[in-house]
Amino acid sequence: MANDKKFVEKITSRDVDFAKWYTDVVKEAKLCDYSNVKGCLNYLPNGYAIWENIQSNLDKRFKETGVKNVYLPMLIPESLLQKEKDHIEGFAPEVAWVTKGGNEDLEERFCIRPTSETLFCDVWQKQVKSYRDLPLVWNQWNSVLRWEKTTRPFLRSREFLWQEGHTLHATYEEAEERTKQMFKVYQDFVQDDLAIPLVCGKKTESEKFAGAVDTYTIEALMHDGKALQSGTSHFFGNSFPDSFGIKYLDKENKLHSAYETSWGLSTRIIGAIIMVHGDDSGLVLPPRIAPTQTMIIPIAQHKEGVLEKANELLERIRKNNIRVQIDDSDKTPGYKFAEQEMLGIPTRVEIGPKDIENNQAIIVRRDNGEKITVSLDELEEKLQEILETIQKDMFTRAKDFLINHIYEAETLEEMKTLAKDKIGFIVANWCGDEKCEENIKAETDGFGSRCMPEEEQKNVSGKCIYCGKEAKHRVYWGKAY
Amino acid sequence: MANDKKFVEKITSRDVDFAKWYTDVVKEAKLCDYSNVKGCLNYLPNGYAIWENIQSNLDKRFKETGVKNVYLPMLIPESLLQKEKDHIEGFAPEVAWVTKGGNEDLEERFCIRPTSETLFCDVWQKQVKSYRDLPLVWNQWNSVLRWEKTTRPFLRSREFLWQEGHTLHATYEEAEERTKQMFKVYQDFVQDDLAIPLVCGKKTESEKFAGAVDTYTIEALMHDGKALQSGTSHFFGNSFPDSFGIKYLDKENKLHSAYETSWGLSTRIIGAIIMVHGDDSGLVLPPRIAPTQTMIIPIAQHKEGVLEKANELLERIRKNNIRVQIDDSDKTPGYKFAEQEMLGIPTRVEIGPKDIENNQAIIVRRDNGEKITVSLDELEEKLQEILETIQKDMFTRAKDFLINHIYEAETLEEMKTLAKDKIGFIVANWCGDEKCEENIKAETDGFGSRCMPEEEQKNVSGKCIYCGKEAKHRVYWGKAY
Repeated sequence: MANDKKFVEKITSRDVDFAKWYTDVVKEAKLCDYSNVKGCLNYLPNGYAIWENIQSNLDKRFKETGVKNVYLPMLIPESLLQKEKDHIEGFAPEVAWVTKGGNEDLEERFCIRPTSETLFCDVWQKQVKSYRDLPLVWNQWNSVLRWEKTTRPFLRSREFLWQEGHTLHATYEEAEERTKQMFKVYQDFVQDDLAIPLVCGKKTESEKFAGAVDTYTIEALMHDGKALQSGTSHFFGNSFPDSFGIKYLDKENKLHSAYETSWGLSTRIIGAIIMVHGDDSGLVLPPRIAPTQTMIIPIAQHKEGVLEKANELLERIRKNNIRVQIDDSDKTPGYKFAEQEMLGIPTRVEIGPKDIENNQAIIVRRDNGEKITVSLDELEEKLQEILETIQKDMFTRAKDFLINHIYEAETLEEMKTLAKDKIGFIVANWCGDEKCEENIKAETDGFGSRCMPEEEQKNVSGKCIYCGKEAKHRVYWGKAY
Repeated sequence: MANDKKFVEKITSRDVDFAKWYTDVVKEAKLCDYSNVKGCLNYLPNGYAIWENIQSNLDKRFKETGVKNVYLPMLIPESLLQKEKDHIEGFAPEVAWVTKGGNEDLEERFCIRPTSETLFCDVWQKQVKSYRDLPLVWNQWNSVLRWEKTTRPFLRSREFLWQEGHTLHATYEEAEERTKQMFKVYQDFVQDDLAIPLVCGKKTESEKFAGAVDTYTIEALMHDGKALQSGTSHFFGNSFPDSFGIKYLDKENKLHSAYETSWGLSTRIIGAIIMVHGDDSGLVLPPRIAPTQTMIIPIAQHKEGVLEKANELLERIRKNNIRVQIDDSDKTPGYKFAEQEMLGIPTRVEIGPKDIENNQAIIVRRDNGEKITVSLDELEEKLQEILETIQKDMFTRAKDFLINHIYEAETLEEMKTLAKDKIGFIVANWCGDEKCEENIKAETDGFGSRCMPEEEQKNVSGKCIYCGKEAKHRVYWGKAY
């Protein structure tokens, strides 16, 4: 017989030690674990299945905007990486170098891609000749490698999975528009499918991607009040294409610069799902992304007719395109409940002899524990409704948490007090000087600039919270993962 | 205006120079091209879209048999690679080595995975304790790297895309059964979805995977008569698990060995699709795998109502879950026809003013050029039927070609003559001695052993074609890519 000890006893309480709670959940839900390859993760079936659903939902959204997928090599020759100055400075310290192939020492060493702007430009340089070849709207789902010193499951690891979109356009305006379009795709995906509310906007100069003109970011607020950068969209102008000699002939047969964007979202987002929605019983997955949306748990399954009925419900629910499983193992119902809760499966359906007698089943919501008795005649419809309600409620709950953790500071003293007493974002004015930005972070125990939401940048008035000069930007500051 | 020159003039005839025809098709259909990273490919949108459909169809078949996807690191520490003796001997000469991370020299070097048996065993060693933890039926879609000297698009490149399945079982029998099950999944997928007929069976000792007990292979016959190994399923027994210290407690609480399998299919298969089905007008894609199944080409599209009607048909066809596009660019119809043929799109729908008048459209089959006039009232149904017919006809045509290119040899002289005069497979008896196998290949200008189909191994009688001793196996011999 299986052990009846509840999973819940194995995990630290979220409010006692958030970091420990996080790693406990990752471990007990078997999402990923550390590989013997230092700093790299094994993405295990439960974790990878979440990523597969993220991929399929997000890829669909990409394709609706005309994105085409490709795959470029994992290796970058050192000479290619060096073509764009800011880029090489940003990435050189954190790449892994291949110096030997088979038994031969290589003439030129290769790095394992930390990101692929240089490779995309290299392909385009050969392909793009005329305006007819543009735009190119490409994406790849792959892994990249950055030689990080400290690592945490999903949040920071040497190798991680992501998608990197790269696009090339005939005009500055079109490229800028694509940057914003993909920024919007991320917002819609994360808010609608992952039920994670966001603060979104441009990064400051110092927080931009190496080589970009502008970086747009989506920032999510974790339960411990720290921000997690959850996706970025970069506008490059023509700096990369020019560095790589990409020019095209326009309709008047004149040579023209081309304009580039790139945008990425990674397995970090799984960390956000855990830290926004999870609780002391484990993971809580939004229905739209949950690999299993409902788990059927037969009660007193040895009694006549119970397993039969449970399997009948399984088939009925499956036919309604709900991702459903049955747990008919020899574990106790209590153990099964705890396991389904640990895994974050949005609903369970309990069905026992008495339920069958009464032509009913009990649906239990993972997000709030509510038990709902439903007639078997309308089980599928009710279940579908409940899943949709859970998706909405999870977003609303997280949105309330976010709104309740955004504070405004008029003076540096106010900001320091908030930074000490509260968790979340602090909104404060800034003059645009990088020194003030650095000083604010230093004097507030780590509240760095997260982003500058566009709609809040109109009519900025008042003074920079640090130097007292005229403010140019309204910035969201926060501690970050 | 676009150039009206036909694509067809850009490609070499298949029967004049098959190798040149192949690279021309790959280039003109924009499937992939060589990267500046020597020996690596850029998988471009048209080629990658085929791979995406292969992934989605095959992954569905995997999951129906209980496979779960995971992702393990791309790097393998040297000490890990060395744990299984045959395996390291097989792969060490062809791996790339990472020796530097950031600015530091590494204490232990890592290779980029050439395959991941060692990594899977490493994870399992930590996870598997009792019989309850088994079986583990895992797969990953990833890329691997082997430092090849000579490369050809899709057929051989340093980095290539594939899936590698790895499973662990409590018993020898269960693992052997899983090896055969996945071997069957490959056969069904390649024959049913890619319309490629196969010769399937065990590999000889010398052709087995490094470290395997048995390797099962599916072999396809290209139009030039060469065989292409298109997927393999390996049974490892307990050698790998034992080398990695994987043991489990059985129901009687006794320590037991575990048994392993692995199985893989790669982007090579795209090479098979090209070389089995392609013709002098370019690619011919089986409907089930074609990214676009039908291209609507409006005729005299400047005339009133034509584009409108064409777009109406587009919507109607799309609603019927046929992957349809419209080419309403300013190219001439002739150019569009040639382009659709080059890309291998299974059907095109021509619709012009006269067709509209007659309430009809012309469907043209890519595989045989047949033009079929259909009433607009039943366009979707007819198109669906035609796509299914094309899928069947492509398989039948390729199957006829395969059957007509299998020869039997009773004596070495017969085999030498066949090897000189014919293309395809030669079936001949063999004693099982590796020296005879080598000699046969050497004396027939490269007809190596491809496989030993199970159903033909019963009641093998007669003599080894080389040494004249009692034959043990009936072998398919062929030249191979």
